[in-house]
Amino acid sequence: MELGKHLIEEHNQSLLNTHKRKFDFVAEGVSDVEGVIKKLIDFQIAIPSWALGTGGTRFGRFSGGGEPRSLEEKIADVGLIHALNKSSNSISLHIPWDIPENATEIKAYASHFGLHFDAVNSNTFQDQPSQAHSYKYGSLHHVDKAVRQQAIEHNIEVIKYGAELDSKALSVWLSDGSNFPGQLNMRGAFERTLDSLQHIYEALPNDWKVWVEYKPYEPNFYSTTIGDWGQSYLLSSKLGEKAQTLVDLGHHLGSTNIEQIVSLLLMEGKLAGFHFNDSKYGDDDLTVGSINPYQLFLIFNELVEGMDARGMNHATAIGWMIDASHNVKDPIEDLLQSVEAIKIAYAQALLVDQPALVQAQQDNDVVQAQEILQQAYRTDVRPILAEARLRAGGAIQPLALFRGTAARNQLIQERGLKAVSTGL
Amino acid sequence: MELGKHLIEEHNQSLLNTHKRKFDFVAEGVSDVEGVIKKLIDFQIAIPSWALGTGGTRFGRFSGGGEPRSLEEKIADVGLIHALNKSSNSISLHIPWDIPENATEIKAYASHFGLHFDAVNSNTFQDQPSQAHSYKYGSLHHVDKAVRQQAIEHNIEVIKYGAELDSKALSVWLSDGSNFPGQLNMRGAFERTLDSLQHIYEALPNDWKVWVEYKPYEPNFYSTTIGDWGQSYLLSSKLGEKAQTLVDLGHHLGSTNIEQIVSLLLMEGKLAGFHFNDSKYGDDDLTVGSINPYQLFLIFNELVEGMDARGMNHATAIGWMIDASHNVKDPIEDLLQSVEAIKIAYAQALLVDQPALVQAQQDNDVVQAQEILQQAYRTDVRPILAEARLRAGGAIQPLALFRGTAARNQLIQERGLKAVSTGL
Amino acid sequence: MELGKHLIEEHNQSLLNTHKRKFDFVAEGVSDVEGVIKKLIDFQIAIPSWALGTGGTRFGRFSGGGEPRSLEEKIADVGLIHALNKSSNSISLHIPWDIPENATEIKAYASHFGLHFDAVNSNTFQDQPSQAHSYKYGSLHHVDKAVRQQAIEHNIEVIKYGAELDSKALSVWLSDGSNFPGQLNMRGAFERTLDSLQHIYEALPNDWKVWVEYKPYEPNFYSTTIGDWGQSYLLSSKLGEKAQTLVDLGHHLGSTNIEQIVSLLLMEGKLAGFHFNDSKYGDDDLTVGSINPYQLFLIFNELVEGMDARGMNHATAIGWMIDASHNVKDPIEDLLQSVEAIKIAYAQALLVDQPALVQAQQDNDVVQAQEILQQAYRTDVRPILAEARLRAGGAIQPLALFRGTAARNQLIQERGLKAVSTGL
Amino acid sequence: MELGKHLIEEHNQSLLNTHKRKFDFVAEGVSDVEGVIKKLIDFQIAIPSWALGTGGTRFGRFSGGGEPRSLEEKIADVGLIHALNKSSNSISLHIPWDIPENATEIKAYASHFGLHFDAVNSNTFQDQPSQAHSYKYGSLHHVDKAVRQQAIEHNIEVIKYGAELDSKALSVWLSDGSNFPGQLNMRGAFERTLDSLQHIYEALPNDWKVWVEYKPYEPNFYSTTIGDWGQSYLLSSKLGEKAQTLVDLGHHLGSTNIEQIVSLLLMEGKLAGFHFNDSKYGDDDLTVGSINPYQLFLIFNELVEGMDARGMNHATAIGWMIDASHNVKDPIEDLLQSVEAIKIAYAQALLVDQPALVQAQQDNDVVQAQEILQQAYRTDVRPILAEARLRAGGAIQPLALFRGTAARNQLIQERGLKAVSTGL
Repeated sequence: MELGKHLIEEHNQSLLNTHKRKFDFVAEGVSDVEGVIKKLIDFQIAIPSWALGTGGTRFGRFSGGGEPRSLEEKIADVGLIHALNKSSNSISLHIPWDIPENATEIKAYASHFGLHFDAVNSNTFQDQPSQAHSYKYGSLHHVDKAVRQQAIEHNIEVIKYGAELDSKALSVWLSDGSNFPGQLNMRGAFERTLDSLQHIYEALPNDWKVWVEYKPYEPNFYSTTIGDWGQSYLLSSKLGEKAQTLVDLGHHLGSTNIEQIVSLLLMEGKLAGFHFNDSKYGDDDLTVGSINPYQLFLIFNELVEGMDARGMNHATAIGWMIDASHNVKDPIEDLLQSVEAIKIAYAQALLVDQPALVQAQQDNDVVQAQEILQQAYRTDVRPILAEARLRAGGAIQPLALFRGTAARNQLIQERGLKAVSTGL
Repeated sequence: MELGKHLIEEHNQSLLNTHKRKFDFVAEGVSDVEGVIKKLIDFQIAIPSWALGTGGTRFGRFSGGGEPRSLEEKIADVGLIHALNKSSNSISLHIPWDIPENATEIKAYASHFGLHFDAVNSNTFQDQPSQAHSYKYGSLHHVDKAVRQQAIEHNIEVIKYGAELDSKALSVWLSDGSNFPGQLNMRGAFERTLDSLQHIYEALPNDWKVWVEYKPYEPNFYSTTIGDWGQSYLLSSKLGEKAQTLVDLGHHLGSTNIEQIVSLLLMEGKLAGFHFNDSKYGDDDLTVGSINPYQLFLIFNELVEGMDARGMNHATAIGWMIDASHNVKDPIEDLLQSVEAIKIAYAQALLVDQPALVQAQQDNDVVQAQEILQQAYRTDVRPILAEARLRAGGAIQPLALFRGTAARNQLIQERGLKAVSTGL
Repeated sequence: MELGKHLIEEHNQSLLNTHKRKFDFVAEGVSDVEGVIKKLIDFQIAIPSWALGTGGTRFGRFSGGGEPRSLEEKIADVGLIHALNKSSNSISLHIPWDIPENATEIKAYASHFGLHFDAVNSNTFQDQPSQAHSYKYGSLHHVDKAVRQQAIEHNIEVIKYGAELDSKALSVWLSDGSNFPGQLNMRGAFERTLDSLQHIYEALPNDWKVWVEYKPYEPNFYSTTIGDWGQSYLLSSKLGEKAQTLVDLGHHLGSTNIEQIVSLLLMEGKLAGFHFNDSKYGDDDLTVGSINPYQLFLIFNELVEGMDARGMNHATAIGWMIDASHNVKDPIEDLLQSVEAIKIAYAQALLVDQPALVQAQQDNDVVQAQEILQQAYRTDVRPILAEARLRAGGAIQPLALFRGTAARNQLIQERGLKAVSTGL
Repeated sequence: MELGKHLIEEHNQSLLNTHKRKFDFVAEGVSDVEGVIKKLIDFQIAIPSWALGTGGTRFGRFSGGGEPRSLEEKIADVGLIHALNKSSNSISLHIPWDIPENATEIKAYASHFGLHFDAVNSNTFQDQPSQAHSYKYGSLHHVDKAVRQQAIEHNIEVIKYGAELDSKALSVWLSDGSNFPGQLNMRGAFERTLDSLQHIYEALPNDWKVWVEYKPYEPNFYSTTIGDWGQSYLLSSKLGEKAQTLVDLGHHLGSTNIEQIVSLLLMEGKLAGFHFNDSKYGDDDLTVGSINPYQLFLIFNELVEGMDARGMNHATAIGWMIDASHNVKDPIEDLLQSVEAIKIAYAQALLVDQPALVQAQQDNDVVQAQEILQQAYRTDVRPILAEARLRAGGAIQPLALFRGTAARNQLIQERGLKAVSTGL
């Protein structure tokens, strides 16, 4: 389904006066509100193709209705999100869950919704029916060269698919690790992984990047071969300039200071980008901003400060993507909440009085530094986001409009109650 | 398949001299080795019916060959384990994964292997095709009375199945909880759970118990309605004498002092029993004793001391069961390792010089208390376990014999390479 | 030093127009803003006497200047805070750090600042020079009856001091525990603690409460005898109606769902009150609201809902106190930030649309439930707090006024640069 | 006090028969027991000068009697330990707690006990009375160049002291960090730290190393400037070949796979050495091996495998030191237990059947890999340690002999009950 432009216009018209009052109020307190709006309009967050269906856990999965049954339907869902919030103009494919059979047609179809293709993702953490070798004991780190070779070739094939779609990055998440002490020689595993990645690196087009993700545990529960930012950094620095480290917010041990990692990776020119989600316990893959929105703001505070210090373009210099599991929420609604939370944090970070913060830091005025951060964080920036959406042609309240149009019911009618999306 | 008795005898014969030398050595250092052996022979650990197949994670599952395809084949696998180690004389069924169609026949079949039926387990964390209402938002805590009623009836049905099998306990693990703040009124959820459990409690036969399990998170990632021992205790104390709290070793937040919980539940007469596994991060469901065997010993130290203080029979006063996920190991081999690890910890705990420990505690002699515990723990008790097995008719080295007979290959031949067991 | 009333008036006058604009804006979006203001005016948070000095860690302590040298100076500091924010009208004494030699005079002195005395705190985690027995191995749980008796008598003496000051509660935090496995029989430790507390309980005046605090670790690093809410609950339920469980926000294992504990303790009528602080790793004792302000809001959401459900008076039914360590901030400034953060969370919780939330919960509309909570949380309620302060005679911006009057410099002149406060 | 040689001989004589029986038994199962003994004799663990006194927490400190009052008495205590276990032939000084006024005399005095001087430790986490600038807001990372310069000069002075004592390494632990978001620009802090370390690095003698320690939190509770192994590695790789990363076992977030870090640092030639202790919650600084001895074994398994793969001398290629806090145990007894635990883990690691393990790993035989590790770990190697001590001139049971001679009572008589050691 597609959302008629007039629906958005009607929606906006009905909320305009209230919106204006709120926006004018908040704008009065912001020094360069136009600059902030411009940055918010430019800032786009990619949607992964696997996020449009209902997720689950090892204990089960409770499908929702109207899930997309094909790549085209997933693109249409992202198109719907983008029409509503004008903040998600790209989709990130996962191979082999979403193989684009005809790249030209798929690109044209996406383009119709104003979408292009973000990083492509390989999958060597599951076995496919056609596969010669199993990844039960890992892929790029495997003791058996034949398994490694198969995994390398899969990654190169993913690059090929991506190139046809004008993607510019390969995103590699390995579940390689061990469940028990002794299972693995950890040094050997690291060295084999590096060797495998070097083969993949060589197959990268010149204008591509490879993003090396890390994760401490799950699905392996003793060691993970790329387990923390230091291990990913070690790999990406040995690989070369096209390799960088990807930060998934859920991929850290409890209490990790993620914003410090972000700050240092930026310093080293090695921050590839983000997979956004939130969590209370482990890699819970909850809606970003639903558990600890202040931490998200602190991360964006480091990003804005650090990218500005290196003259980087906020919108394009690194990758921004949601990666969450929608187990009990409608995926489209969940993604609308996610994008909103990310842009709230970004807008708050843009509001931080950086010169004053620098001065407070120079004076070791800890109280004042906290005041400065919380002044930005406590500001209700939602009207600025709405204004940016309004100007870009989106809806003042995307979620309310989505619900108001009963879009999900339409999707259920089109696709059925029992459709199941490919993916996890 | 069944293991011929002569195979065990041949195996034992071949190892007897070496075994005797080791046993005699360790026996010399133990004050009442015969008492220890007696207790080890009596001590049996139940095997859950879902443990015989390969487990997985939300990211995938890599089957092994020769998995049991039916309840009968699961019973046969437990029979094989018990023939080897004489330490697992019961099986714990999970409904509806393993519904015993004909109780009399199933009991007779189990009895053929020397097995009986331990606690029965209900399942309201997954939807079954035939089900009227979904458990997507919980079961016994659900806001909708109809859903709660369905879940109550399922539990009562499970009791009925159990009664036919001469089980004496219903084990209830609820995944009920919430993924996001606001999703649930937590007080209301608790009160509805209590009300539901009261209905189930009323259906319990007089000589039954209901075991109330707790778990902090997964598959819900914000709150779990029975989230910790205190919440389970609150429920079981309100329910009455037939209700007790079940401890699954993996169901705790990081760093929890589990042994203290065990000690206090014993004090209150509210310890139902154990689900054994090990973990490094969360509910990793690894082989018990594979990550932190000293903690396992410390738990058994509390058990032995606490049960003796209350005059409880170690073997029968509470429930002992393995509950792990065999993702990368042969399930039977994994279970053999698990039972061995549990009995090692138990034997070490039996070796603790309790009077000396009491004295050291009375003197606040912390150094000496540690020496006493570690003296028991450092002792290589494996020959004592082997002796107990030998006397009970089992194998000196169960795992070696299982491998030596190529039992798994036989199972693959019988059941095929692609058999998939019911369960997770 | 005391803050002249005219200074507050001048300060408020200079900010009044800006304040009014902000307040009018936010008030328009709140259904019963007058009700909220009334509740904010009533809501008072106690200051502990040990919070006025600089705190430290085992690695060191870096004093600030102008720290209070006596109980009188501590009272004066709280008076200054209260004059500024009209939200901290009581002080909580710690015995023996702050023994009130003459209760009548001290009460009159406090009363001069509009202050009274909140709960009194005993200390059996340190040895005092005059003490017969050492608490090295614990106090109320000690194996030696003489040590327990000394600790019991100390607590009874603290009640006596409190009674003279019109306190109504004894707050007991025990560091009793063990550093090593084997050091302690945990059941025995629990039973002795219960017995000791019963003696103290008997000495409580009829209109008093005893608040039993829990903490998982530090200063003991293997077990703590009152280690979690369940253990505290067990004790307070065995003691009787005058005993309740105190929640210190920093006294939980990582990832604990504190709001659920709060909800259940309220349900059971066993919530004594709070010690507020924030933390990222352990019992970090940071400024409340500085690390995870959303969690603080979620706790207050449970409090408001749960207290309303039981018809409890928010301001008086339970105890509210700050308990943090001011290692790198000026203590008075830190306390001003703390009180502000607590009242922001409280105000946001008052803004939650409870009927709509109940409906969303009834519908399992998880998306909507999150929207409702975040609508309240995202609202910038600071102008409502300022309005409440203004009406109560406090300052629109307490921290700015404190800094503007150079109050700390005056304190340094009065008390010196090297004054060191009693306490940690 | 000094332990007469005859006391050791008498002690050994009395235990010899029993020892021989046990040693002969275990030796029969070890393929190269002489090689193991040789390595155990060579393996020495340094004692830090601050470990001889009682430690404490921020809540208090409970002194023990007979604590050493001077550097000479600390050396004597290490001498006593070494006489007993022949495994601690060096002492690691902390400046300024233990400034050697006359290096020649101190070396001679140490030499009398068979001791030399291990790494020297600087201290910029506390203020000294004579100091011009405060470290309240950090040292090598400080925003103020004058503070950094002071800290640099202190480190260079420590090198000077060390050079006079024939030390060969400077060990740097910084508490630099921040308690609150915003307090610090984390990139700037890192860059200033690097710059400061470069100045120190330049002052290193050619045959020296600088060991860069990391720690995630405490005494700072938001960020630590050298917070994890990746950050330390980044610094040490930028500094040069003489810089390496020091691993303190307690300096990790919960659940960290420390053995993997060890394996990779060895791979990169960047492992400086160890500070040994154990912990359940945070940096608990408990006796090594008292909480999770299997983890300690797993770390040694990586060390033995990794050092052998690089042809490194186990005893001398990296630094081995205890760093724990003796809060409730006699420090000397605690150190004897610590050294024993370390050498047990080392001996067990030497017993691992490495070729079989390599084969199991090559076969992905996870069950077998676990069997191999646990076969080594379950072996009671204590008689091998005793044999190594016996041959080196130490005691078969050092702790029993220490207690038997009532050495602590003698120390109390010499030094008094209330002596307090310098340090924490």
